[in-house]
Amino acid sequence: MRRSLPTVEEFVQGIRSGDRVVLGKAITLVESARPEHQALAQDVIARLLSDTSAKADTLRIAVTGSPGVGKSTFIEALGMYLIEKGQRVAVLAIDPTSALSKGSILGDKTRMERLSVHEQAFIRPSPAGESLGGVARKTRETILLVEHAGYDTVLIETVGVGQSEIAAHSMTDVFLLLLLPGAGDELQGIKRGIVEMADIVAVNKADGDRVKLANQARAYYLNATHLLPPKPNGWAPRVLACSSVEGTGIGEIWETIIAFKTQNLAGGFFQENRRRQAHYWLQEALQNGLQEIFFRHPGIKEKLSAVEQEVLAGKMSPFAGAETVLNFFLSNK
Amino acid sequence: MRRSLPTVEEFVQGIRSGDRVVLGKAITLVESARPEHQALAQDVIARLLSDTSAKADTLRIAVTGSPGVGKSTFIEALGMYLIEKGQRVAVLAIDPTSALSKGSILGDKTRMERLSVHEQAFIRPSPAGESLGGVARKTRETILLVEHAGYDTVLIETVGVGQSEIAAHSMTDVFLLLLLPGAGDELQGIKRGIVEMADIVAVNKADGDRVKLANQARAYYLNATHLLPPKPNGWAPRVLACSSVEGTGIGEIWETIIAFKTQNLAGGFFQENRRRQAHYWLQEALQNGLQEIFFRHPGIKEKLSAVEQEVLAGKMSPFAGAETVLNFFLSNK
Repeated sequence: MRRSLPTVEEFVQGIRSGDRVVLGKAITLVESARPEHQALAQDVIARLLSDTSAKADTLRIAVTGSPGVGKSTFIEALGMYLIEKGQRVAVLAIDPTSALSKGSILGDKTRMERLSVHEQAFIRPSPAGESLGGVARKTRETILLVEHAGYDTVLIETVGVGQSEIAAHSMTDVFLLLLLPGAGDELQGIKRGIVEMADIVAVNKADGDRVKLANQARAYYLNATHLLPPKPNGWAPRVLACSSVEGTGIGEIWETIIAFKTQNLAGGFFQENRRRQAHYWLQEALQNGLQEIFFRHPGIKEKLSAVEQEVLAGKMSPFAGAETVLNFFLSNK
Repeated sequence: MRRSLPTVEEFVQGIRSGDRVVLGKAITLVESARPEHQALAQDVIARLLSDTSAKADTLRIAVTGSPGVGKSTFIEALGMYLIEKGQRVAVLAIDPTSALSKGSILGDKTRMERLSVHEQAFIRPSPAGESLGGVARKTRETILLVEHAGYDTVLIETVGVGQSEIAAHSMTDVFLLLLLPGAGDELQGIKRGIVEMADIVAVNKADGDRVKLANQARAYYLNATHLLPPKPNGWAPRVLACSSVEGTGIGEIWETIIAFKTQNLAGGFFQENRRRQAHYWLQEALQNGLQEIFFRHPGIKEKLSAVEQEVLAGKMSPFAGAETVLNFFLSNK
């Protein structure tokens, strides 16, 4: 980041006018650990949210699936399909492993050949060097930024290993699970809970020799999702097939997403879901902030460590230990 | 509870001498919501724990299973078996539904006909009118009390529906799951996670016409548990059969429990598990206490409620909302 940052006003105007450079800088602020960057980022977001005339009709879609299922290629196909329909599309990622493996799921832009250079698309990889909690929080805030920059659909790509999907589920309107052609054994690569979160399941790579296998998979997963308890919004998960390479089935998936959105809007579930998500993130942020205040308290770590030893040695009950530490926190503040 | 409470000294001496009336009163203190009772209870527990010469060789066993599997009858059979071996046995319950349903799992003492009147046994139902968190915390403290009153084995009965089992697992040395004779369909009544927690699975009611079905169930669950990932302590879950009514198989289950304990003691897992549990409860108590301090703060509820409205209306980001509330907490303390 440059030495001299734009002002709040410059950020807000730049983002609203769809300036990609300013948008990118604002996301870098959100991702920064420096308190002055965080303060500025919060000011920018507050200003953006204060404009109630801002674009409200956005859609946030989680796209997940095991490694190798073709998430990037699918996002390229769906993204280009939406751009051809006149949309602007943002792609974000929740991938806490990216810092470790350097194999960030959005790092390989060659798989999004057209989307990555298209002016109607904005692609941002997962922030590096963060815990899942940190990545999730930053992605949640980045969604707000890209929506205010005029992107209609936000695709959130995740790695398919479990925790990242729960985070993506807590900030999206639709949860899309990609699977490979073939029988039910693929379920083993996907945690059961992820299948249960899916609103739409798409068997990808349904092309060439794999069409028959894809249909088998479709029948299998249709059966599997029918065994799941019904969702509160009355939506029965749909199972579709597509080929991201050939582009077949992408339109049908989009129509199903729109059907899901329409049904949820009509029943009030769409709005209710967003409110519930906002409430969840408020609780999370309060919880984390409270812990931070506690652990920042002078002398608290030493006190806790001493009490911990007594408790682990069985000389003090955990409850008496907690009381001792909390009394120290209260008396010393 | 009487108007005049015993002193800390009287409680400690009474409990150590195995006085059931004093023990019962001490548990009532632990269960009480009144701050002065809580303070006295903590003093009593602190005094008990300060005596390092106290009995250390106790065993805490979770006994769970779906309604109808015969948990009470099993506890009667195992409890009497242990008493005949010279032990003193305490039976506690984690049943947050007891207040609602009035069908407390330990309420029906007719199913523990001999145990409930035996002087070497101490049976205490789940505290009433509490959330699961409250019940769990109180049961955790009650374990300490009954152990210091000289009970060798503590059986913790749970209802088999999920959350109570996680709580029981966090305070016991051995996790025992009871199942009914018959094929694998019974798994549907038991959450998968509970089967995964089991150290020992016992197919109960293996008597009369059901012996064949019990053997089928045993083979089925043996297979199912073999598919589970191995536990860190190297123990492969054992699947046994028993008849609580006829008393068959109870000895074998006890020997398996002892084999499990011996293997865990030798590998250091037994002690490590208790330390981990103490650490978990310290963290939980700290977390809860911190929340309590926060919500007790003058004006915080009003502040939070105002911020919540802004956040749910989408006028404020959840993170800015949390910061506002936390700043109020800090500036006003």
